[in-house]
Amino acid sequence: MQTPHILNTYRSAIDGALRSMLEPYTLPLYDMMRYHLGWIDEKGNEAAEPTGKALRPTLCLMACEAGGRGYERAMPAAVAIELIHNFSLIHDDLQDGDEERRHRPTVWKIWGGPQAINAGSAMRVLANLALSGARREGLPADKYERLLGIFDMATLRLIEGQYLDIKYEDCFDIGVTDYLAMIRGKTAALISCSMEAGAIIGTDDTETAERFRELGENLGIAFQIRDDILGIWGDSRTTGKPGGGDIRRRKKTLPIVFALSNGPLRVKRAIAGIFQKGAVGDLDTEEVLEAMGEAGVYAHVQEMVEDYCEQSRRLIHAIQMERRFKDNFEQIVEFLTVRSH
Amino acid sequence: MQTPHILNTYRSAIDGALRSMLEPYTLPLYDMMRYHLGWIDEKGNEAAEPTGKALRPTLCLMACEAGGRGYERAMPAAVAIELIHNFSLIHDDLQDGDEERRHRPTVWKIWGGPQAINAGSAMRVLANLALSGARREGLPADKYERLLGIFDMATLRLIEGQYLDIKYEDCFDIGVTDYLAMIRGKTAALISCSMEAGAIIGTDDTETAERFRELGENLGIAFQIRDDILGIWGDSRTTGKPGGGDIRRRKKTLPIVFALSNGPLRVKRAIAGIFQKGAVGDLDTEEVLEAMGEAGVYAHVQEMVEDYCEQSRRLIHAIQMERRFKDNFEQIVEFLTVRSH
Repeated sequence: MQTPHILNTYRSAIDGALRSMLEPYTLPLYDMMRYHLGWIDEKGNEAAEPTGKALRPTLCLMACEAGGRGYERAMPAAVAIELIHNFSLIHDDLQDGDEERRHRPTVWKIWGGPQAINAGSAMRVLANLALSGARREGLPADKYERLLGIFDMATLRLIEGQYLDIKYEDCFDIGVTDYLAMIRGKTAALISCSMEAGAIIGTDDTETAERFRELGENLGIAFQIRDDILGIWGDSRTTGKPGGGDIRRRKKTLPIVFALSNGPLRVKRAIAGIFQKGAVGDLDTEEVLEAMGEAGVYAHVQEMVEDYCEQSRRLIHAIQMERRFKDNFEQIVEFLTVRSH
Repeated sequence: MQTPHILNTYRSAIDGALRSMLEPYTLPLYDMMRYHLGWIDEKGNEAAEPTGKALRPTLCLMACEAGGRGYERAMPAAVAIELIHNFSLIHDDLQDGDEERRHRPTVWKIWGGPQAINAGSAMRVLANLALSGARREGLPADKYERLLGIFDMATLRLIEGQYLDIKYEDCFDIGVTDYLAMIRGKTAALISCSMEAGAIIGTDDTETAERFRELGENLGIAFQIRDDILGIWGDSRTTGKPGGGDIRRRKKTLPIVFALSNGPLRVKRAIAGIFQKGAVGDLDTEEVLEAMGEAGVYAHVQEMVEDYCEQSRRLIHAIQMERRFKDNFEQIVEFLTVRSH
């Protein structure tokens, strides 16, 4: 299935605003960000590399429009969100030792870990500066302060999630609840913040903002579980991640956590045995896939995606907004539930 | 010479406020911060390890009092500043590969680089949350927003300085101007922000705040150059840094930069030759010290400290405040100019 149409609607506006935001910063430190964002190659020459889906800023702009005000008002917040997301990606790539992202060497792989830390941290500060643009464009002080608070809390939860993710690498007794605590931080917090922020800017109704927050939380969880599914059963050509996937990287994604906690003893033993080894080869990967097939893991985790999507649909139904906005949000939910193999 | 008395005046109040700030955070992620701050050992048991001088928060509180309002008003800002400073220390230790700080293993050495990145980044977010406490305690919205702006800019300049510091590691043609650009970011930006923030809270006079900003800038540069002097000619028992100092770590501190750019050709060649080697031994260190002695480097850099201190004294003289506050600031300047060998 193709990327939902709505994800392209605001794309060039987001890209333009992001480029304007970075424009005044000329130190080579900021070229590391431009490289990461796909605008230049590692030598600084212009490039048009594939960039991200801009899912988070799009959700922010959508929530603003659905709330009743023009999406442009939420652009500074959307830019801030995309910067926070990319701050975390630059650090994550280093923390996970990932050498490629979207078929290009990661920032740390080119400039080294110490400078990748600087590029990521500076990006998080730029997010604050981007958000202050909303205030200059007339956002009332109380709303601005509310946004500051939710952006900081989302970042903190995001870092806590990343902390748990790394901690879980050495744990074999984590269950689905632990996993959910981790992705609520690592993924859902920022997606939820995107939608809440958009709604705060787009409407004065606090209940609507709260519903959008919940919608973002559910969408975020569904999104991460689907990402986990693609990381194991997805095609490396479409995901842009190196072949072999999350099994090779011994990541504790939901399918693995599910098999280790709910699978039959034989399946648990097989997977734990392979994950405790130093390196995971092709045969190991096959063995894990076979063990997961035996335990019916795919159906169970796909069902979890569908549950969170169903909850998302209920929230979309409950939020007061025009029909066309509901349709757009449903497009995104639809995209997440499609079986990927 | 002993640490100036004024640095102890607010110490326990700062420590108490910092502990209260961290108290609600119970995830083990935050224990890495408590460890770094010297409150607990690596197993989580209470400890009373030597902590930092709390120079930056003290300067913030001093500037607030000198401006005319009680120092308590500036405490949220002072806590935020100390958190920003320690965010940068946790990351710097990892970036520089330093295994010890204040005679204890650094955070990354115990929990690994990936988790040290998380602890540092989370600390920077906590700084924002600390600062929002000032707003809750009644700081007007316009002042709060001004503070947010200067804290973000100081952090950005701090990261830019760290970027340059790492970049310079492989450069042998940097001069005193390049060095000053680096420490203006790495050290002076946050010290200057501390004093400006304190003054913004302590007075409504914008000119006073601007003068304090300049004072912080000058003090910050003097402070860093003095630190560089101690890093080469200082005693490892008093600095708390491992023996052999900055020569062994091949850091481009001012004495080295000065010798490489202004020394006689023979001295330049000797130092560059040693710094380009993979490891610097005891004999190399001695040779560098001898070369610097020959070029009279110590006297030159000490003179630079004294120039920035003299400029600081002029600013202290020009700022309208009670005599006792001037005396306190002069105590700090005095401390910085004392010859250390």
